Amino acid sequence: MTNETVHAPGHWKDLSLSYEEALVRLPEALKKEGFGVITQIDMQETLKAKLGVDFPRYRIFGACNPSLAHTALLKDPRVGVLLPCNVVLYEKEDGKVVVGAVDPMQTLGAAAGSGLVEVAGEVAVRLERILAELST
Amino acid sequence: MTNETVHAPGHWKDLSLSYEEALVRLPEALKKEGFGVITQIDMQETLKAKLGVDFPRYRIFGACNPSLAHTALLKDPRVGVLLPCNVVLYEKEDGKVVVGAVDPMQTLGAAAGSGLVEVAGEVAVRLERILAELST
Repeated sequence: MTNETVHAPGHWKDLSLSYEEALVRLPEALKKEGFGVITQIDMQETLKAKLGVDFPRYRIFGACNPSLAHTALLKDPRVGVLLPCNVVLYEKEDGKVVVGAVDPMQTLGAAAGSGLVEVAGEVAVRLERILAELST
Repeated sequence: MTNETVHAPGHWKDLSLSYEEALVRLPEALKKEGFGVITQIDMQETLKAKLGVDFPRYRIFGACNPSLAHTALLKDPRVGVLLPCNVVLYEKEDGKVVVGAVDPMQTLGAAAGSGLVEVAGEVAVRLERILAELST
């Protein structure tokens, strides 16, 4: 596809942490940037329970900065379909762990007519710092 | 902005249901299309607890069809930053209730190089049926 709206899903970094270490470090890194973990999905567990299939360790954290979420919702209440901002940890086949975060400029920032570009940019900067902190 | 990637956040329908009725009907409608509610955020409660602000009744349901999620994750494990698919209920100032769903073609379907357009289309069709069912 050559559609101009096509882009990679989120931003990703390789980690030198173990999966267990990353599970501890990620919520701490989020907290330093004002994000709480408001939802958490263990995809390995979910797929095993619902489909009986084996899947690598994979967890989706829904990160919410209440003040930025409030600002976004006041500008356009429809943005809830794009909240919270997800941060994902998973283990690749070689055992290496990666962390990824949604690109809010691709989601919130692309939402029309609602002045959300500024808040999306603020979220993007913070998520980038979180990925950088975990990967160094 | 005139950027070609700009679009409204999700698809929305006005409901003639009360908020309480919609809270009951939505999970039923999701279930009929193979989606479980895997996360749930009460934004009114969250904003009150974290910021002390008053906000209308507003709930974000993270909807997951395990089979479609598995298909998408096998095609590209990075799509977790775009999962689950959100469906939102909120009460407008006039007391009317609206339901909205993320447009998976704007999120999953726009993810590059991963053959996700087909699964995004399947999710989109189901979410549209869910909104239609609730709004009739």
